[in-house]
Amino acid sequence: MLPPSLVTDLCTQFPADRFYTDPVDCYSYAYDNSRKIFPPDAVLFPLTVEEIQSIIKLCNQYNIPLIPRGRGTGTAGGSLPEQGGIALSLERMTKIITVDPANRVIVTEPGVLNQTIQDTAKQHRFFWPPDPSSAAYCTIGGNIATSAGGPHAVKYGTTRDHVLGIKAITGTGDIIKTGCYTTKGVVGYDLTRLLIGSEGTLAIVTEATLKLTALPQTVAGITAHFKDLTSCTSAIVRIMSQPQLPSALEFLDSGALNLIRGHNAGLLPTDSKAMLMIEVDGTAKEIPDAVATILKACQHNDLIEAKQVQDTASLWKARKTLSPLLREVAPKKINEDIVVPVSTLPEFLTKLTQLSQRYQIANVNFGHVGNGNIHVNLLINPDNPEEVKRAEKCLDEIFDLVIQLNGTLSGEHGIGSEKRAFVSKEIDPTTMQLMKDIKKLFDPNNILNPGKLFP
Amino acid sequence: MLPPSLVTDLCTQFPADRFYTDPVDCYSYAYDNSRKIFPPDAVLFPLTVEEIQSIIKLCNQYNIPLIPRGRGTGTAGGSLPEQGGIALSLERMTKIITVDPANRVIVTEPGVLNQTIQDTAKQHRFFWPPDPSSAAYCTIGGNIATSAGGPHAVKYGTTRDHVLGIKAITGTGDIIKTGCYTTKGVVGYDLTRLLIGSEGTLAIVTEATLKLTALPQTVAGITAHFKDLTSCTSAIVRIMSQPQLPSALEFLDSGALNLIRGHNAGLLPTDSKAMLMIEVDGTAKEIPDAVATILKACQHNDLIEAKQVQDTASLWKARKTLSPLLREVAPKKINEDIVVPVSTLPEFLTKLTQLSQRYQIANVNFGHVGNGNIHVNLLINPDNPEEVKRAEKCLDEIFDLVIQLNGTLSGEHGIGSEKRAFVSKEIDPTTMQLMKDIKKLFDPNNILNPGKLFP
Repeated sequence: MLPPSLVTDLCTQFPADRFYTDPVDCYSYAYDNSRKIFPPDAVLFPLTVEEIQSIIKLCNQYNIPLIPRGRGTGTAGGSLPEQGGIALSLERMTKIITVDPANRVIVTEPGVLNQTIQDTAKQHRFFWPPDPSSAAYCTIGGNIATSAGGPHAVKYGTTRDHVLGIKAITGTGDIIKTGCYTTKGVVGYDLTRLLIGSEGTLAIVTEATLKLTALPQTVAGITAHFKDLTSCTSAIVRIMSQPQLPSALEFLDSGALNLIRGHNAGLLPTDSKAMLMIEVDGTAKEIPDAVATILKACQHNDLIEAKQVQDTASLWKARKTLSPLLREVAPKKINEDIVVPVSTLPEFLTKLTQLSQRYQIANVNFGHVGNGNIHVNLLINPDNPEEVKRAEKCLDEIFDLVIQLNGTLSGEHGIGSEKRAFVSKEIDPTTMQLMKDIKKLFDPNNILNPGKLFP
Repeated sequence: MLPPSLVTDLCTQFPADRFYTDPVDCYSYAYDNSRKIFPPDAVLFPLTVEEIQSIIKLCNQYNIPLIPRGRGTGTAGGSLPEQGGIALSLERMTKIITVDPANRVIVTEPGVLNQTIQDTAKQHRFFWPPDPSSAAYCTIGGNIATSAGGPHAVKYGTTRDHVLGIKAITGTGDIIKTGCYTTKGVVGYDLTRLLIGSEGTLAIVTEATLKLTALPQTVAGITAHFKDLTSCTSAIVRIMSQPQLPSALEFLDSGALNLIRGHNAGLLPTDSKAMLMIEVDGTAKEIPDAVATILKACQHNDLIEAKQVQDTASLWKARKTLSPLLREVAPKKINEDIVVPVSTLPEFLTKLTQLSQRYQIANVNFGHVGNGNIHVNLLINPDNPEEVKRAEKCLDEIFDLVIQLNGTLSGEHGIGSEKRAFVSKEIDPTTMQLMKDIKKLFDPNNILNPGKLFP
């Protein structure tokens, strides 16, 4: 519960439709896609920098956690009010401040949807590369909080590669301005990228300057089906060792394929045990060669078929349904987001299968293999404590394997609360302490999203 | 002078050929391309992480400045021992630790030359995009210190876009490991990019994981000559408003052209007052269209000629000689590195001409206009105090203009000592204080490159 005097203060500053305290209203802001539930004590919907400053000052004064959130599509619990406090919903700060095609820039408030930026950019033959599955619903602010990626990151990189500058308010209520409006700039330390991926623990982003990329003239889709995992992973390694990058390289294992089959009878070959969805983009003239190169790299004795497909939309649609479909198979999924070097994917996926068998945990894997980024899903019944225990042990070994292979625990989801117990596997104590000290600089009273990201 | 007991300590740890104290030996490490002279009290050439740790600990103990340097090609004074102390030359840490084409990665020590990385990558059909004019002589460590760019940054970005991870030693002697080995990763704060561009003020980079890029199959060169500045800048704006980016877009003003004419008679049309050197790259099939698009964007009543050129090498050679040639014209150049949004280039260059006329300061401009990055050179006689004063006033107004146009003071050279007096024009006091606090975290005793980067 918030102190009554704080509620009174906030009531004088915010109209009722931008300040929720009724638990029923607040409940909508209690969860994200991690499916954990932590109701906030209140929800605030600021519209201006000054309002956010005022809220931060009050939270410092009353020592109340402030948990920024976009649209709650994150999967790692990054926007959950675990310790109670105020959910700061940025979803109503939806102004696109500048559309400047001559300088290839859009300046935006944090609550604008990723899709809105795509649509706006497209009018000028540009796009903004980060494209998480949730693009239609997630906000730019949330994308910045996790350095969101998506299928096209293999060619275009993630959010941190496409933000030129940020305006933000630190945990002390100070307004900072980082980066610049141009594609080059080395004046002062790079605080822009320090904020990107910091999951709302350092500052509240109030404005971002986004760098636009040329919309490809032509996109071609290729699918490849394999009789087994090994032939598929060897094709992945061959594709990625070609200098020219595909614009997407998505992998689906047999479990993922079965899920799609259940909803799209006849869409996939019956004997396919592993599938690649591949996209190449560029000018119309270069596409045929690019497609031929990919088809050649797919060749293997255990290839079922590799072919160019005309209707990529239905494939992407099927791919995008995977995450929600997993909910049908098991009451709970432990949804991971690991990355390993591409050349180690064969070893990783083989050992993953062994681990899943040894611990008897159902396991479905798919993801952005061009970056070595696999969404490993452990499917469990949370009401079976023995199974939960086995899954936890299995997960621990998966993370150890990832680190052994010189990989990283999260490619695009972030740490939030879900993965913080494992961060020390990757970050050494000295580097971790430095990160904690940086957090203290930005937010000395630990007001902003307390408890997240760190173990 | 160093305390004798420190010299004794270092003598026991370093052989004489890796520890210079003789002023004659030290003098070679007294300058960089800013042409200022600040002899260090000693020069150390470490070979290992442990040696650097040991040096940092001693410098803390004796409160002695430690100034890291690569090959001293920087232009902003970033590697000068202004306050005396020890020059830490990383030039002998020249191991390439890993060449891993399957994962598109090279791991390297800081003293490896940019050109060596290019040559190594090329064997596997890759390249490393940052390509400063000094590529043949400058080190990867120095490139990281300034987030070095170069002509190809317009398409490929600067150093910060191509480093995946760093090992470094902070000012407290602590070893930190940032980033990862894969192209995606969001575990913890992005300390990699915090270090990139920090000019050796936060930590000494001992190892960097570089992300490789596909070597373009084909490169085509185009030159365009214009009767006046206005027609040239309007062509720049048109070229950059096309979605597809050129791989280089270099501008030379009439002063720069005259310099080249003096050494390459007949190379350039006599009536050219502004020139663009343009490169497009890609597959052989897409090049003709790309060239046609650029040629079309160059059309203007005051265009003299725009044409594809076969021999781009001699042009690049002429372009690369510009910086040294400036030394012939005037005893001193004030060499700036400003960036403005591309659409404001016409206004910027017009007003720059007016300022140069008003203050009667000879002025030669060229640079990477695709990024809006202009090397503004004010040519003066340092023995004429009245001229020096006029130049300083002129420079101050140039920087004000850059900021008014939403630009930045440095695109790729960094701040060092040369530009620190102007940093406050761009960075507000709150953000600056945060940067200073970060410096204190990494280097509480202000041992590493003291006095640089901040006003």
